[in-house]
Formats: sequence, C-alpha cells, structure tokens
Amino acid sequence: MIVREHPSNLKLFFVMQGSVVPKIIGRIIGIVVLSMIVMLVDQYFFPLPHISIAAMGIFGVALSLFLGFRNNAAYDRWWEARKLWGGMIADVRNLGRHMSIFVDKSEDRAPIMSCAVAFAHLHRGFLRSVDVKTEIVDWVGAEKAEKMIAQKNPADSALRSMAEKIGALAEKDQINGFGQMTVSQTLSSLALAQAGCERIFTTPLPFVYSLLVRRTTYLYCWLLPFALIDATGWFTPIFAAVVAYVFFGLQAVTHELEHPFRNMQNGLPLDAMCRTIEISVSEALYRRPPEAMTATNHVLS
Amino acid sequence: MIVREHPSNLKLFFVMQGSVVPKIIGRIIGIVVLSMIVMLVDQYFFPLPHISIAAMGIFGVALSLFLGFRNNAAYDRWWEARKLWGGMIADVRNLGRHMSIFVDKSEDRAPIMSCAVAFAHLHRGFLRSVDVKTEIVDWVGAEKAEKMIAQKNPADSALRSMAEKIGALAEKDQINGFGQMTVSQTLSSLALAQAGCERIFTTPLPFVYSLLVRRTTYLYCWLLPFALIDATGWFTPIFAAVVAYVFFGLQAVTHELEHPFRNMQNGLPLDAMCRTIEISVSEALYRRPPEAMTATNHVLS
Amino acid sequence: MIVREHPSNLKLFFVMQGSVVPKIIGRIIGIVVLSMIVMLVDQYFFPLPHISIAAMGIFGVALSLFLGFRNNAAYDRWWEARKLWGGMIADVRNLGRHMSIFVDKSEDRAPIMSCAVAFAHLHRGFLRSVDVKTEIVDWVGAEKAEKMIAQKNPADSALRSMAEKIGALAEKDQINGFGQMTVSQTLSSLALAQAGCERIFTTPLPFVYSLLVRRTTYLYCWLLPFALIDATGWFTPIFAAVVAYVFFGLQAVTHELEHPFRNMQNGLPLDAMCRTIEISVSEALYRRPPEAMTATNHVLS
Amino acid sequence: MIVREHPSNLKLFFVMQGSVVPKIIGRIIGIVVLSMIVMLVDQYFFPLPHISIAAMGIFGVALSLFLGFRNNAAYDRWWEARKLWGGMIADVRNLGRHMSIFVDKSEDRAPIMSCAVAFAHLHRGFLRSVDVKTEIVDWVGAEKAEKMIAQKNPADSALRSMAEKIGALAEKDQINGFGQMTVSQTLSSLALAQAGCERIFTTPLPFVYSLLVRRTTYLYCWLLPFALIDATGWFTPIFAAVVAYVFFGLQAVTHELEHPFRNMQNGLPLDAMCRTIEISVSEALYRRPPEAMTATNHVLS
Amino acid sequence: MIVREHPSNLKLFFVMQGSVVPKIIGRIIGIVVLSMIVMLVDQYFFPLPHISIAAMGIFGVALSLFLGFRNNAAYDRWWEARKLWGGMIADVRNLGRHMSIFVDKSEDRAPIMSCAVAFAHLHRGFLRSVDVKTEIVDWVGAEKAEKMIAQKNPADSALRSMAEKIGALAEKDQINGFGQMTVSQTLSSLALAQAGCERIFTTPLPFVYSLLVRRTTYLYCWLLPFALIDATGWFTPIFAAVVAYVFFGLQAVTHELEHPFRNMQNGLPLDAMCRTIEISVSEALYRRPPEAMTATNHVLS
Repeated sequence: MIVREHPSNLKLFFVMQGSVVPKIIGRIIGIVVLSMIVMLVDQYFFPLPHISIAAMGIFGVALSLFLGFRNNAAYDRWWEARKLWGGMIADVRNLGRHMSIFVDKSEDRAPIMSCAVAFAHLHRGFLRSVDVKTEIVDWVGAEKAEKMIAQKNPADSALRSMAEKIGALAEKDQINGFGQMTVSQTLSSLALAQAGCERIFTTPLPFVYSLLVRRTTYLYCWLLPFALIDATGWFTPIFAAVVAYVFFGLQAVTHELEHPFRNMQNGLPLDAMCRTIEISVSEALYRRPPEAMTATNHVLS
Repeated sequence: MIVREHPSNLKLFFVMQGSVVPKIIGRIIGIVVLSMIVMLVDQYFFPLPHISIAAMGIFGVALSLFLGFRNNAAYDRWWEARKLWGGMIADVRNLGRHMSIFVDKSEDRAPIMSCAVAFAHLHRGFLRSVDVKTEIVDWVGAEKAEKMIAQKNPADSALRSMAEKIGALAEKDQINGFGQMTVSQTLSSLALAQAGCERIFTTPLPFVYSLLVRRTTYLYCWLLPFALIDATGWFTPIFAAVVAYVFFGLQAVTHELEHPFRNMQNGLPLDAMCRTIEISVSEALYRRPPEAMTATNHVLS
Repeated sequence: MIVREHPSNLKLFFVMQGSVVPKIIGRIIGIVVLSMIVMLVDQYFFPLPHISIAAMGIFGVALSLFLGFRNNAAYDRWWEARKLWGGMIADVRNLGRHMSIFVDKSEDRAPIMSCAVAFAHLHRGFLRSVDVKTEIVDWVGAEKAEKMIAQKNPADSALRSMAEKIGALAEKDQINGFGQMTVSQTLSSLALAQAGCERIFTTPLPFVYSLLVRRTTYLYCWLLPFALIDATGWFTPIFAAVVAYVFFGLQAVTHELEHPFRNMQNGLPLDAMCRTIEISVSEALYRRPPEAMTATNHVLS
Repeated sequence: MIVREHPSNLKLFFVMQGSVVPKIIGRIIGIVVLSMIVMLVDQYFFPLPHISIAAMGIFGVALSLFLGFRNNAAYDRWWEARKLWGGMIADVRNLGRHMSIFVDKSEDRAPIMSCAVAFAHLHRGFLRSVDVKTEIVDWVGAEKAEKMIAQKNPADSALRSMAEKIGALAEKDQINGFGQMTVSQTLSSLALAQAGCERIFTTPLPFVYSLLVRRTTYLYCWLLPFALIDATGWFTPIFAAVVAYVFFGLQAVTHELEHPFRNMQNGLPLDAMCRTIEISVSEALYRRPPEAMTATNHVLS
Repeated sequence: MIVREHPSNLKLFFVMQGSVVPKIIGRIIGIVVLSMIVMLVDQYFFPLPHISIAAMGIFGVALSLFLGFRNNAAYDRWWEARKLWGGMIADVRNLGRHMSIFVDKSEDRAPIMSCAVAFAHLHRGFLRSVDVKTEIVDWVGAEKAEKMIAQKNPADSALRSMAEKIGALAEKDQINGFGQMTVSQTLSSLALAQAGCERIFTTPLPFVYSLLVRRTTYLYCWLLPFALIDATGWFTPIFAAVVAYVFFGLQAVTHELEHPFRNMQNGLPLDAMCRTIEISVSEALYRRPPEAMTATNHVLS
C-alpha cells in the first residue's frame, strides 16, 4: 500500500509510483495513433463516416454505469478486506485481555497468544501464497509450525490448537465456564474474519462482468475517434488520449483493488498488520515488542 | 463459477465461456437487421421519420437508471448469498472448536459434526433441487439420511438432530451449561444463514421490474435505428449492435446473478463449498480430509 | 407476490399480471392525446413555442435523480421487510431447538412453540389489518386467542406469554439459567424483527418526496411534447407514450414496493411465510406438518 | 410526520401541507422575474450573451451529483434515526419480558419499567429541547424526576437508575446472574441507541457541503435564463420556474430530513413513539394502557 | 467541526469559514485567466481549435463518476469515524452501569472508570498525534500515565489495565463470572472501535484514485475553455470559474473528509467527545462533572 501525502501540483503529473499509466500506456498510444490515422484519412484522402458525439454520449452513459458499478464493487471488496483484518487485530488484543481476566496463571497465557500470532501469519501465508514458516517458528516452535502448515487449512488448525489448549485448561480448572465461553466467542470472531478473507480471495467478481466491461471499453475507445473528428477538431488525439486514460485507467484500478491481498502497490499491507499483531501480543505478554514496519519508498508491504 | 485470470487482449474478444453473447446473439442480429432495413428504406425508397439522438439520450438515462438499479440489486443478492455460505463455513469450524472446548469425550464429537456436514449437503440439495443422499450416507448412515430427507425441511432437521444430541449430552453431564449455550448460538447462526439463503431462493426480484426493464430495453433498441441514421451514418448497424450488446448483455448478466444458487457458469460453487466444509470437519475430527475441488475447464461447480 | 419464470419474448408484451400498465394507462393515453394535439396545432394552425430537447435533458437528469432515489428507498424497504420475516422464521426454528436443548420435558415445549405460531399470525394480522383469530385458535385455544387479540399489541402479548411460561418453568427448575438466557435472547430477536416491521408499516417515505416526485413527473411529461415535435417528428406520440410509460411506471412500482406488507401482487407473501413457520413448529414438535402454500395463478399471497 | 394517503391527481397540485413550496416560493419568483427580464432585454433592447444549453447540461450533471449525494445522506440520517427509535421500542418491550423471566416478585418490576418510560421521555426532551417533567412525574415521582433532569445527561441517569435497582435486587438475591447479564445487555442496547441519536443530533452534515451545494444551486439558477432563451423560447419563465422548483425543492427537503428530531412536518413522531413505549410498559405491568396517538390534520407529532 | 445554522441568503456568498474557496482560489483564478487568453487569442489573433461542448459532456460524466465515488467514500469514512466514537461514548457509559450492577464496593469502581477516560484521551492522542499526558494525569496519576504513554499502543494498554483490575477483583471475589464476562464484552467493543479508528487513520483511500481524480480534474478544467468559447460566449470566464469551483471544490472537500481525525474545520470534534466521556464517567461516579465544550467562533475542536 502506498502511504504518502498528496503530491504538490507540479509533481502531480510526473508521479509514476502507484499510477496506472505504466500499465495502460500501450493502449493509450494505440488510441492516439488510431485517432491520428482517422483524422488524416478523413481530411486528406476520403471522407470517413462520422459518428455524432451525442451518440457517443449515450454509449458513454452506459459505459459509466458499468465502470461505476465495477469500481464500487472492487473498492467494497478492498475496504471489507481491510475491515476484516482490522477486526482480527482487535480480536487478538481482546484475547490478550481475556487471558488476564479469566486465566489465573500467567504461564498458561503465552502458548495461547503465540498461536494467535501463528494464526495471523498462516492466514497471511494463504492469502499471499507465501511460506511463513520462519515467521511462526519463533512463536510456536519448529515442530508445531510444520504440523500446522501440513494441514489443508493451516490458519484453522492454529485456531483449533488454541481451542484445545483452552479445553485442557478447563479440565485442570484453570479457566471457568465464563472464560471458556468468552474465549470461544473471540475465536469464532477470528474464524469469521478468516472465512470472510477466504471468500474475497476465492470468489472474484463474476467473470462475465470482466468480459462485458473490457469489451465495451475497447469498443468505445475504438469508435471514439470517428466522433471526435467533428467534435474536437485538431484536439482529437489529445482528447482521445485523455478519455482512454480515464476509462482504461479506471478499469486497471478496479482490477487491482479487486484482489486486495496481492502484494501490489495498491494491495493491503498484510505484513505490516501481522507485525501490529505481534506488537500487541508482545505487550500483552509483557515482552519487548518488535518495531512497527515503516514504509520503504512510500510503500508498506 | 468461472475461475480464470483475465484473458489477454487478443483472446478477450473470442472468449465465449462465461460470456452472455450466445444468449443474446439472436436479439443483436435482429437489431442489426432492423437498422439495415431502416437505413436502406430511408436512403433509397422513402424518408422515414427520424428521431433526434438527444431524445434517445433522455430515454437512455432513464434506461440506465433501471438497468443500474437491477444490476446492483442482482449483484447484492449474489454477494449476500456468498457471504451467507462463507458464514456457514466459519460456523461449522466454530462448532468443531466448541466440541474440543466443551465436550469432554472425543467419541461424542463425531456424531454432531457429521450432522453439520449433512446440514450443508441437505441445504445445497434444497437450493439446487438435487438429491444429496449419496453424499450424506457416508456421514450419518443410510437410515438417518432417509429420515432427514423425508422431512419438509431436511436441513432444519439436521440442525434439530444436533440439538437433540446436545440435549442428550447435557442430561449425561457431558457438556456444561456454557457449552450448551455456545453451541446453541452457533446452531442459531447456521439457521439464520439457512433462512437467508431460503429468502434469496424463494423471493426473486419483484416481477414488475422484470417486465418494466425488459420492455423498456426492447423499445429502446427498436427505436434506436431511427435515431442512428442521422447520428452515425454508415456506422449505424455496428453502433446499434454495440448498444444492443451493452443493454441486452447487462440484462442477461443480471438475470443470471439474480439466482446465485443455480448450477450455471456464473452461479456460486456450492459443491466446492460443501467440500470445504467436509475438509474442515475431517480435520477437526483428525480424519484424513478429502481433496479440495478444483476447477475443470475453468469452472467450479 | 408473483412467482413465475420470465415470460418468453413473444408473451412479454402481453403479460398484464404484475404489470403497472393497467394503473397508468389513463395517464399514458392523456400524454399521447396531448402530444397529438400539440403536433397538429403546431403543424396546421399556428406555431407553438418549441422546447429544445437538450433542455428536457437537463430536466430529465434531475427527474432521474428523484426517481432513482425513491426507487432505491422503496426497494430497500421491501427487501428489509423480507429480511425481517426471514429472520423471524429462523428465530422460531431456533426456539424449537432451544426447547430440545434446555427444556427437559417434552410436554412443556408445545405450549411455548404454539405461542410462537400465534405470534407470527398476530403480527401478520397487524401488518395486513386482517382478523387472524381462526388461525390461532387451533394453536392456543379460543380463550387465550381472544385475550391476546384484545391487547393493544397482540403480537407483543404472545411474546410476553412465552416469557411467562419460561418464568414458570424456571420456578419449577425445568429450565436452567442458560436456557432462560438463550430463550430470552431469541425472544428479543423476534421482538426486534417485529419492531422493524412496525417501523416500515407506520413510517412511509417522507410525504414531501411524494409531492416533489409526482409533481415533477407530471410537469415533465406535459412539457415533453413541446420538445418532441422538433426532436422526433411523427414519432412524437409513440415516443411520448414510451417515456410516460417509463416514468409513470417507475413511480407506480415504487408506490407498491413502499408498502411491502399489503396484500398486493408485488407485496410479500405473509400467508405463505406464516405457513412455513407452522411447518417448522410442527416438525419441531414431531407433529404432522401442514402442506406448504403454493402459488395460485402465479401469485403467492 | 405527515401520515396520509397519496392525494388524487386533481388535489396533487394544490396540497400545500408538507410541501416545500411555501419555503422556496420567493426564490422561484425571483428566478421567474430574472428570466423575464433577460428575455425582454435580449429581444427588445440589446442582445445578451447566450449560454449553450449543453453547457448547462455539464453543470447540471455536477449539480445533480451534489444534490443526489446530499439527499441520500440526509435521508440515511432520517431513516437511521427512525431505526434507532424502533430499536428502543423493542428494547423496552424486551426489558418487560426479562422482568417476567428473571425477576421473581412482580412488585420489583414496576420501578424498573417506569424508569424505562422516563428514559424515553428524557431522551426525547434532549432531542427536541423540550421540558418533559410533567410526562415523567406520573411514572417516577416528582422528586426523582427533578433529580434526573438536573443531571447533565438526564436519559443516561435514568438508565443508571435502572442499573442500580438491578444491583440492589442482586444483593437481595431477587435476580440471578443470568438475569443481571441479560438486563445489562438490554440496557447497553438502549444506551447505544441513545448515543446514536445524540450523534445524529450533534453532528450535522459537514458545513462545507451546505455552502458548496447552496452556492452552486444559486449560480446554476441565475445562469439558467441565459441558456433557456435559446432553448425554450417563450416557455423560458415556466421552464426556469420548474427547474428552480426541482433544485431548490430538493435542497429544502434535504435540509428538513437532515434534522430528523425537530418538531417539523417531516420530522419523526417522537411523541407518538414515546406513547407507544408507555403502552408497551403498561401492558407489561398489566395496567390499563393509554390511547395511542392519532394524527391531527394528517400530522403525527 | 463547524457548528452553525445555515447562513441567510445574503451572507451565504461571503462566508469564508468552512468554505473551500481559500484553498482553491489560486486554481480558479488560473482557469479564469486561461479562458480569457483563449477567448482573446481566438477572437483577435488567430482561430484556435474548438472543442464541442458535447464532447466535454462525455468527459464530464466520467469525471462526475470519479468525483462522486470519491466523495461517497470519503464521507463514509468520516461518518463511520463518528459512529465509532459515538459507540465508544455508549460503551464507556455501559461500563459505568456494569460497575453498579456487578461490582459490590463502590471504591473499586473508580479506578476502572478512570482508565476508561484515559483510554479515550490516549486514543485521541494517537489519532491527532498530540500529547495527552496532562489530561490523563488527573485521572490515573502521573506514574501510570507515563507508563501507559511509553507503550507502543497506549490506548490498548489502558484497556489492558482495566482487564487486569477486573482480574484482580475476580480473585478477591468482588465480581462474579457474569460480571467478568459482561465487562469483558464491553472492553472488546471498545477495542473494536479503537481498531476501526486505527484502520481509518492508517489506511487512506487508495493512492491511485488521488492521482487519477486529480489529474483528470486538471485536464478537464484546462480543456474546458476551448469548449466554452463556442458554448457560452462572453460568459466564458464566469462559467469556467463556476465549473472549476464545483470540481476543485468537491475535490478539496473530499480530501478533508478523508482524514476525519485531523484538527481541521471539517474534522471530528475529538476534544469535545472526550469531554463528553469525562462528564459521563463523573456522573457515574457521583462526582461533579466538568462543563461540556462549546463552539468558539462556530468551531468545536
């Protein structure tokens, strides 16, 4: 995720970081070239059929409808993903507090809280398709780490491991029924957030929208020059470039936000949020917390 | 559900899978033919009355309003259905954890968790109108499976069966009051998700919208050629085809997403999600989990 | 509520059931006649002042804004009402399960569950302003039915009656504290859904919107012919009819959905949902359930 | 709040109650006069610069964006306020039921339920800035009423008083832990609704929007006549009046709904809802309930 | 936050407080100058290429889409932040009530409630990057204040401190399990609100939108004069200024609301809300509450 103040007006047009321009520059140039050819052929060789700009307006309203919908849907996915992770951070802190309210012996607290850190990393590992073994070995030990990773759903196995520890404490009467129930609810809340992230991860926007929106955008931009030669005169290539930038740009943005967990410039900073969880757990266990992650080159991974 | 990366630019226009083109190609061709006839009659036989493109613009804004609303409503149904199933997956995992926290003897856990799998399949059977007996016999036995399916609401009977088992455990003091209450809440959560899916399944979008939107779309596309002959010249058939593609396409998409449980290309992968539940339950019972389903030919059923 | 598959293309234009056409046909004919008079007077008698179609476009965007807002608000009410009833169905099923978990003697369960059915019918009676005494006599007996109906808020008295029965069971130690609490929460959930329905029933959309939207729609349609004579030529009456159909139609739809509980073609099927609750309660009490309601002539009441 | 059926077509244009016309008639007349002057000067004295109606269209889309946003935000506030009050009604009913489930002696129930009525009135008093002492004296006695009103947050003190009564019952073992917890949760729910209403009451829409929207609306309406003289001819004053009605009207509506608690024609009927609470509490205590409020001259205060 | 009644019509155009004009006046003047140059060059020197106003209309719809989305997203952040703080106020009041229900000795209540005040201030300190030591020393003492501030997450440490106090009370049997659980849930609710605010604080709107929207707005306003010279004649500079005011203004508003916690004119009044919490806690402890904050020069900080 890019973390920086808005650039000043001068810089605004030269910032490439986080911009979609590099991804769509090819298509923009294509539209510019097409519009130049159309303009020159129409002027110097033979008249091409023109399209009234008002007809493009009708088309444009429909296209805006599509792009607007898709943009909202993609942003909602991105923001919901962030909310789910925010909820997970709160839940882990809640767990820490439950421990000091309901678990008498402080040496019983650490193993459970460590599993919470493992849960966060394993969940991140699933969402980013990365190996997180090194991160969790420090918390739960090598053997347990491997056992968890070997499961089909490693993050779920971390939660299950916490539940088993609670069950064992209950048998030894180290936690009362109220504590069992409260912790149980918090684990359920973590599992719900996990399932929510899995939902966003495994269920893209319906494929049919991608086809419909992308095809329509191309058709629009290809027909546009035939309308612009009347409507904008010598401005045609510039105007075509700007419109292509707007529509292809929105589409590219949407495509990035649709997948909020990917390690991209506009993706969510899962690494930094796992670190936040580590800090919270460390402080809850009165250990020295690690440093919070900072953005390198404006990017927080 | 179609699971594939976005096609490259070249392929984009030839991908038919998941596309709505096959469903609406007849109507598009109809509009193209109509626009050709209108153009030829107007040019070579006798002048037809023209419609100003700006008048179509007014109409187009109203139509966009309709289609936009219907599209949002249909997508919300689809996404809510996915959320409900995601919540059910989390709830089943929660149940597994509750078992290890609150139920002392592990042999008491399996029968309850098996019913949870049966619940998922029976619910799927209702939503897809398919027979799921073979899937649940492995989990709850043939006799019980038949008894459940014979009920008016088989999925509800699976939940009730779980409740009775909990009640029986409570009488034998194998689960305390906290456990009863926690499990009871989770079953309620499953029932709420079930009722949510039934709601989406039994309550289509108000029929009056279908009539209004579809009639309006046809009227729009039929009137369009009379406006395009002035506004787009020889581009008329192409332009009419594109606009018909956009409006009929959006309508077809909407119609598919409105019914998220149907076994269609853009429907939800209920089979795969039931398998996910089977995996979670197997892991919670320390059994060998089945393999996760994978997409065949990009489609996850 | 109308339950039918989308009509085929041929039938689409002749389906009158669920259509708004019968309600607005007078206004549409009025606009058509007006536009014919305007056209003839302008052509054969004396020129009338024309309105540029672009000016109507500005007006049209504002009108779309109004109608779009009102449509969304009305649909949200309708869908929220359906959600609340869906939640009530789930809650009644939950109650049944709580009985088998927390109430030891099965003969204590029936009276409580019967009150749940009475609650649903009494609530329906309030929302539809119908007499439901015959429906509930079978469940709670004539005397009690009359007593409940005599209250200011009969549905609330059914809930209170359930609470009193739980209180009585608690005094006899037939239900423990966990059961009291769990049942209590479910009753609260039912009461919340009830209050939600009362809110939708007693609070229409702000009256000021009705005035603003309806007046604006009339003004728009009356001014439209003066713009169409330039923009659409001999198509004027047809075009005016289509636009009037779209705008008056949307307004009529909105007006129906705004009141989701009325026994209209696009209203919610409260009778069928009460029957669903009866089936669930019967199955929970191991009684023979009644048949589910089916649509007669595509309509589920 | 205005409660009436939609007026018939004839009456529609003469209903003044609930209409925004009286509030904006001055501005509408101003625009009509301006447009007449512009038209006459342009025709008979010297040509004024004209604005293309299409340019106003661009402006109009932006203005619609503003007004649409503000309208949605204001309506959401109004509807959320109604939801919060509906939730409070349900919560008070829940409290009544909790009493019969958890509090053994019926003479202990009345003082607590009376405080709930006081809470509703005190909360209404805060939101409407009215004195509610007379209404609550009947329920809690003069001395207590004065003491509550003397607090900075009288409604909160009513809730606190209920909590203290519960605490006292617990000390005398008249309510068990489950009851304490259940009642406690319901009081929390009331407090949440209260804080929600306070939020809406103390936090208006950002002031900057008011400036931006109102200034823009004025600029639009002042520039409009220069565009209409070309586009609508002799219809100019009528058309200007209609557009001014639409835009100023929407703005006036928004301003009313933004403050849902004020005692205005489109405000929420807080008095009637407090009466509903009194009825529910009376019935829960087996007392004779007061009559429900009815609309006088279509208005429910 | 600015708290004032809407200014009268006369004042409306001269109010600078809370207005975005001072921030964008430079850009507006730039556009006016550009449009004057374009107009003069075109008229007196050599004809410049003109852009059809309809082409700008297409562009304008796309730009409205962007600005509308961004505006909604920013307002949602602002309003969600206010909701979270409103929830925190309710939660602190709930805590006070839980104390009188569940904690027997009143001298045990004050230390816990004091930490709640510290929590609010420390949270505010984080969100505003200000030092709040002086505010909390009065409540928790200098030593504890310093210890809390030294933590990585001071607000979380205040919550943890409350949990430890509850744990200590439980060991001395001064609070029962129900109380532990209820307080624990309320602390979790506070932590969830805290994490929600942290989410809004640390996660700006995706940077890519800022670039896309701002670049597009500039391009639009720079191209506009070339379209206006045909469409608005001598009104060109005025019209350009108005459109620039609308689009740049909306962008500036959005940028302010995106960061709801900053101490700006349109930011949330965190100071005043912390004071509200102090008042509630004081009243819950029967202490003399401080005065509520009032707006100075219409601004509540």
